[in-house]
Amino acid sequence: MENNGLLKGKPVADSLTEELIKKTQELNKRNIFPKLAMVRVGNREDDLSYQKAASNRCSKCGILTEIVELDENCSQDEYINTLKNLNDDISVNGILCFRPLPKSLDEKKIAETISPEKDVDCFSPENIARLVMGEKCFPPCTPEGVMEILNYYDVDVQGKKVVILGRSLLVGKPLSMLLLNKNATVTICHSKTEAIENISKGADILVSCMGKLKMVDKKYIGEGSTVIDVGINFDNDGNMFGDVNFEDIRDIVGKITPVPGGVGSVTTSILAKHVLETCIKQNS
Amino acid sequence: MENNGLLKGKPVADSLTEELIKKTQELNKRNIFPKLAMVRVGNREDDLSYQKAASNRCSKCGILTEIVELDENCSQDEYINTLKNLNDDISVNGILCFRPLPKSLDEKKIAETISPEKDVDCFSPENIARLVMGEKCFPPCTPEGVMEILNYYDVDVQGKKVVILGRSLLVGKPLSMLLLNKNATVTICHSKTEAIENISKGADILVSCMGKLKMVDKKYIGEGSTVIDVGINFDNDGNMFGDVNFEDIRDIVGKITPVPGGVGSVTTSILAKHVLETCIKQNS
Repeated sequence: MENNGLLKGKPVADSLTEELIKKTQELNKRNIFPKLAMVRVGNREDDLSYQKAASNRCSKCGILTEIVELDENCSQDEYINTLKNLNDDISVNGILCFRPLPKSLDEKKIAETISPEKDVDCFSPENIARLVMGEKCFPPCTPEGVMEILNYYDVDVQGKKVVILGRSLLVGKPLSMLLLNKNATVTICHSKTEAIENISKGADILVSCMGKLKMVDKKYIGEGSTVIDVGINFDNDGNMFGDVNFEDIRDIVGKITPVPGGVGSVTTSILAKHVLETCIKQNS
Repeated sequence: MENNGLLKGKPVADSLTEELIKKTQELNKRNIFPKLAMVRVGNREDDLSYQKAASNRCSKCGILTEIVELDENCSQDEYINTLKNLNDDISVNGILCFRPLPKSLDEKKIAETISPEKDVDCFSPENIARLVMGEKCFPPCTPEGVMEILNYYDVDVQGKKVVILGRSLLVGKPLSMLLLNKNATVTICHSKTEAIENISKGADILVSCMGKLKMVDKKYIGEGSTVIDVGINFDNDGNMFGDVNFEDIRDIVGKITPVPGGVGSVTTSILAKHVLETCIKQNS
């Protein structure tokens, strides 16, 4: 790996944040104060840590945040009513629902309730459809963060072979659509793929979003390829690792995102960007 | 190619039709008469020929059809009102809008108008989203026809390398979702893909939906692979051909759908199946 092969998220997030601060200042001059509402059920560790990161990023960008905390046993009606109030609240520009929701709630019904205009993380069916149709929309923040990193570091995707490991609704599938829209040739692999190493080895760009601690080692990597590690996994001692065995492959790859400090650092900036964009649209 | 390698559409359509006839008879006994409405703007050759094929298939299955013909200069309001009337008409179970619509009409607005419950060809954003989410829905008829052929002829897709040539909203993209839901490993290629032959050659199953007359020749085909030809193209003399150069590859492939007589023959049976399913749901 060349010295400059480390695709750190911080410069990407910093550059975005700088732009967003300017936009917020413009809005503030017009007496407009962009605000994100986050709806959390219970106290899942993941949600709390993302909430903290998102609140910090919004604060840096001058975006207000409102946290709505619901009891882990909250009813479907309670959730829906909360969401409807936020839909109707003109002081709220963007809404983020922490997912996955508890099994007792009907995620589909809730997705249909969130106002597509305020849906900053592609939860509503309308926004999922727009993404597939290649129309303007807010894609989920994580896959858009991947695109932002590739763009920031001038990694061209047009015509390139991109292999995605993982087919989730939050990352793999929407990322495949974003990459197709940018003319990449996209292969989606998953747990049922046969001889997955042989496929991933042929990639110009490999994106792993399997959620499997250090699964991706030498066998999976083509010489000089770009590797984007979306995985967030913890070992028994609570240390954070990606899907990629970084030490094993660092001398083979051309460019690679670290974990922590890679894709995860960009996601909240994308969220903030969506809040500002929807705020600007709502006030235009 | 073995003798039995020709994946003809007719047996698939016949088998489906037989099932559908039985279902219609059951419904008729309960005084329910399933009906498909088709909305056509102007007199495009493609639309007229599909209308004829769909009417014939429905008639075979005992499904009533109603053709709504709009002038090629019809206004947006006129189209929307027509659609709303069909949405409200309880005698109509399924609605098919011939696409592409003339450029003067706003296809997106119209897609949002069709009742998702009566949308038998995955036109509405809600149904596109369901498809991506892997939920029960009516996928577009052509990609579901491809799945039906693979299933009928026992071509296993689980874990297999499937390469799709073409990324349209009507075939390539939805087919990728259907195949992923069945655990295939899916690669989507398109006009911007570099060295497309090298990728398609590695496929266990190759699906071409590029709409390029006889483009797919020997160079594209792996020995013994299965080839599904979705293309419908015409030469200067008006003869119909697929995307595949059949003569060039017939000795290399394991199984192949002919054109005509392949995928195209199954599509209308899928349409009829969707009409019956939605009718049964509406009457349950």
